Amino acid sequence: MALAYDGAIQRLIDAFNRLPGIGPKGAQRIAFYLLGADAQEAADLADAIAEVKAKVRFCDVCGNVCESSPCPICADPRRDHTVICVVEEPKDVMSIERTREYRGLYHVLGGAINPMANVGPSDLNIANLLERLKDDQVKEIILALDPNIEGEATTTYLSRLLSPLGVKVTRLASGLPVGSDLEYADEITLGRALAGRREA
Amino acid sequence: MALAYDGAIQRLIDAFNRLPGIGPKGAQRIAFYLLGADAQEAADLADAIAEVKAKVRFCDVCGNVCESSPCPICADPRRDHTVICVVEEPKDVMSIERTREYRGLYHVLGGAINPMANVGPSDLNIANLLERLKDDQVKEIILALDPNIEGEATTTYLSRLLSPLGVKVTRLASGLPVGSDLEYADEITLGRALAGRREA
Repeated sequence: MALAYDGAIQRLIDAFNRLPGIGPKGAQRIAFYLLGADAQEAADLADAIAEVKAKVRFCDVCGNVCESSPCPICADPRRDHTVICVVEEPKDVMSIERTREYRGLYHVLGGAINPMANVGPSDLNIANLLERLKDDQVKEIILALDPNIEGEATTTYLSRLLSPLGVKVTRLASGLPVGSDLEYADEITLGRALAGRREA
Repeated sequence: MALAYDGAIQRLIDAFNRLPGIGPKGAQRIAFYLLGADAQEAADLADAIAEVKAKVRFCDVCGNVCESSPCPICADPRRDHTVICVVEEPKDVMSIERTREYRGLYHVLGGAINPMANVGPSDLNIANLLERLKDDQVKEIILALDPNIEGEATTTYLSRLLSPLGVKVTRLASGLPVGSDLEYADEITLGRALAGRREA
């Protein structure tokens, strides 16, 4: 009995099923969608995959993904070159850009310190960060790592590493998310919000 | 401010975001996964997409997707050519094959009657089904459409169309799903299960 689809369809389903967040049913749905879609849309997707592997590289300065190094942010003279915001991943750069509250530069570590996954400081893009501080142009480093165990460990590590260098080291505020409910806040978040209280 | 990624990454995110069941966050996650994946895996996915558009066609007999017509099921002499199971979509063929309970042939309609979406009987692969009944080899037609409004309408339509032709027309049993809870069954399903009760 045929328990797999005929040739190419099954290979496409399998290929989508290997992607993160796509299960067997979702992969099947996408495969049949592409089968019914016009040839141009399918070709666009195939081309976009090939193109991203061929063109995308990492910025030699900040470690963000880009097509030319230095990346558009590092190369932009209108941005504030005295502040560097340190993040874990390229997608975190996009999250901060969306706030439209920040005009400085970035530094992408490529992860966080995680002993369970054998990721130590030497596996992160930290040497380049120290290199960027050498010309004394940078006045502030904002540590914007994920508020979880790995992010906290990395924040502590970087804070101790950078503070002696005479640069101001700050971190994002912890507290209640806007629009949330005090009643449902976990006690650690509420504790942080209390500790970080400011005049109203 | 850069609110989109640089070039190729954004195009890849957009291409994935257009697929069914993938939102902006999921598309971003997949794009960065592919960026970090080895070149072979990304190439395999791009090739699979191109291949499915180039190779896959519909079986001239049953309407199922295949790479050669007639499809492997229609061409298999070991299958029971006196029974045809009528389904809406190619993925329904796979669902029935997985039960390992059916050894007959299939007929894929390509949808169900749905006046709201302007799909009438003439938009479905029904003429070919009538053609297949002409040589009097087929003894039974099993209507295996989705148990929803469109499927019921199509079942009723096909049942009235096919019964006068002297072929036995059956439909899948409605009732309680195996492993479910009587308490949580909706009243229509429970009503069908009662009406279709059989000796224990």
